Amino acid sequence: MKNAANLVIAQSGGPSMVINETLVGAVLAARGAGKAVGKVLGARHGIDGVLKGDFIDLKRPSEAFLERIAKTPSSALGSCRHKPTPEDCDRILEALLSRGAGFFLYIGGNDSADAARLVAERAAAKGAPLRVVHVPKTIDCDLRGNDHTPGYGSAGRFVACALRGDDLDNRALGGVKIDVVMGRDAGFLTAASALARERPDDGPHLVYLPERPFSMPRFAADVKAVLARLGRCVVAVSEGIRDARGTLIAAKFSTERDSHGNLQLSGTGALGDLLAGEIKRRLGVKRVRADTFGYLQRTFPGIASETDAAEARAVGAEAVRHALAEAAAGAPVAASTIRIVRAKGRAYRVSFEAAPVQTVAKDTRRLPDEFIAPAGNDVTPAFVAWARPLLGPLPPCEVF
Amino acid sequence: MKNAANLVIAQSGGPSMVINETLVGAVLAARGAGKAVGKVLGARHGIDGVLKGDFIDLKRPSEAFLERIAKTPSSALGSCRHKPTPEDCDRILEALLSRGAGFFLYIGGNDSADAARLVAERAAAKGAPLRVVHVPKTIDCDLRGNDHTPGYGSAGRFVACALRGDDLDNRALGGVKIDVVMGRDAGFLTAASALARERPDDGPHLVYLPERPFSMPRFAADVKAVLARLGRCVVAVSEGIRDARGTLIAAKFSTERDSHGNLQLSGTGALGDLLAGEIKRRLGVKRVRADTFGYLQRTFPGIASETDAAEARAVGAEAVRHALAEAAAGAPVAASTIRIVRAKGRAYRVSFEAAPVQTVAKDTRRLPDEFIAPAGNDVTPAFVAWARPLLGPLPPCEVF
Repeated sequence: MKNAANLVIAQSGGPSMVINETLVGAVLAARGAGKAVGKVLGARHGIDGVLKGDFIDLKRPSEAFLERIAKTPSSALGSCRHKPTPEDCDRILEALLSRGAGFFLYIGGNDSADAARLVAERAAAKGAPLRVVHVPKTIDCDLRGNDHTPGYGSAGRFVACALRGDDLDNRALGGVKIDVVMGRDAGFLTAASALARERPDDGPHLVYLPERPFSMPRFAADVKAVLARLGRCVVAVSEGIRDARGTLIAAKFSTERDSHGNLQLSGTGALGDLLAGEIKRRLGVKRVRADTFGYLQRTFPGIASETDAAEARAVGAEAVRHALAEAAAGAPVAASTIRIVRAKGRAYRVSFEAAPVQTVAKDTRRLPDEFIAPAGNDVTPAFVAWARPLLGPLPPCEVF
Repeated sequence: MKNAANLVIAQSGGPSMVINETLVGAVLAARGAGKAVGKVLGARHGIDGVLKGDFIDLKRPSEAFLERIAKTPSSALGSCRHKPTPEDCDRILEALLSRGAGFFLYIGGNDSADAARLVAERAAAKGAPLRVVHVPKTIDCDLRGNDHTPGYGSAGRFVACALRGDDLDNRALGGVKIDVVMGRDAGFLTAASALARERPDDGPHLVYLPERPFSMPRFAADVKAVLARLGRCVVAVSEGIRDARGTLIAAKFSTERDSHGNLQLSGTGALGDLLAGEIKRRLGVKRVRADTFGYLQRTFPGIASETDAAEARAVGAEAVRHALAEAAAGAPVAASTIRIVRAKGRAYRVSFEAAPVQTVAKDTRRLPDEFIAPAGNDVTPAFVAWARPLLGPLPPCEVF
């Protein structure tokens, strides 16, 4: 009798507050699968750990320990931003097969989905019975084929909480406050700032997204109009805003690129300082401040959205169930992903559906037009209705 | 029979997560004082509201409403950064007396304490029976004569939580992460980052305070040593770090000053970007990121320290009790403050003591030497023991 196939799991890309829920959801499902799964191995730092043979035995930790891991933000196995070449994928496949892997779960965004696709294609070409499942994770919510992605609700909750506090600060001291939010290509996270609003004069009063061209004179005119109306102004702006030609506004101030060729936008305050300087210069406003939320958006502990955490857990378990079902059915080897699909209707309800990984890999999804206000400086009520169940309730705040 | 004296209350300076607890503590105490207090008036935007006659009737809101205000971050009455001139103080006194005020409570830091002193001095000179009480508030914890100040525990909790999440992020993706923390002259808030640590290799690995001269070569050498030991490095640094001659490191990049003549340090990412650039240049480290926590430290909702909130409430009530007692005793008119005094011994216990406002006004308190590690790049275990009860428990985190 041949040995049961081992399961290898890894985390990739930027951490989130709930990516460890996904890890633990998958690990517990694999541990609960009886003889269908042999070892459960966690690769440290994504595919780098696969290539180096750096694994953790995930059948060993107690459930209580794993539950504490689940509640911990950031990628507990370690992550990487290493985009594999086709040759890397050959080596990854070899490394997985040499470990007796029959299942490979890769938790990440669209780059990770593409890596999963490449590895599965090579496995299929070799006739190796390796079930590869990409498990969605991205705070940017920019995976195609998904209503939303695990990690988004919690990061969005951070952003909305931050804006709610910052709007109260601006009420107290006045002036113009600019908050720079993560999101290179998609405005979902910046848009979440709108959930901070409860009252008609609550901020953010202006929301700028990468999906619409950003014009500095238009920005100044927008701020001026809000100041005239309210005597103060709070702005949420995506780090990924671009001018009419598609050039990143931040590009003038940063030249560092990651291994995916992406410009470094987070971990620098340059864009916020630029925008604040322009408002001071163009409008003569004295008190203008800018904060760049940075990495707190993805790893601040203790404030995760409960819905997000539960869904993150569920996609991990679903990925294992799907891989086991494919194996049991002897389905052709091909990489899958687990998609989050929202049911139509007023009540919030989602299902988790397996699909070919090509449906989510590579290209990113952007904020749909119906979520962006016609003026291009705000979101629509439809966006707020869509996002509210994902973020969950915010701490209540009261004003005189 | 003459009318009961009215009570005017105002908030000043930078907001905090619990300054509204102090407001509500005072308002409920004043409302509970029966005929000893006439109207309870909240001045909008500190002394600016007093001067403009912009008041809220604080006997009107329901207790339930006030309790919601208490849990809301930032100054609900509005704040100001207007440092009154001696002439302003004459006008403030006139405005207060014209409103029938017998009690003036001013919630704020050391600048506010000094304003309270000036107003009381003028009242005494005029023989006006105005009881002025300064009620402490500052996230910087830099008020003399206090073990700590309301607002500090919650802001410190934000900083420690942020560092805990950021350290997990750095574990996952490596490199050097620099977090810039508020605190112009005192390192208490930056020092609170150390509370993020649970395990020997947890960050922050280096902590730089305004109380010790900052040297760029020394900083680079410190980071290099941590990288050699752990392969990664998380740094907490105060916005107020200075070189050996006392010049702010941030001074090269910001020239804006507030009305107190203080250089603008928050609301800009320049210092973090400078430090990150130096590490890249001097050490050749590729992945160096900097975040500047900014205003989130003082107004992020929902994460206040319970101890801090309770104490903030108590100092407000105590201020009213003290003012009433002074009035009842016919004590000479002079401004008081309420100090937080910690009892000696292992169990955490504080008392609230009235004292002359001169004991806290103007000069700031700095982090004591016994809280700073001899190398000048960390805090001591004594600091951690001192700060832990103020911040309260952090969200637990687990690592493999």
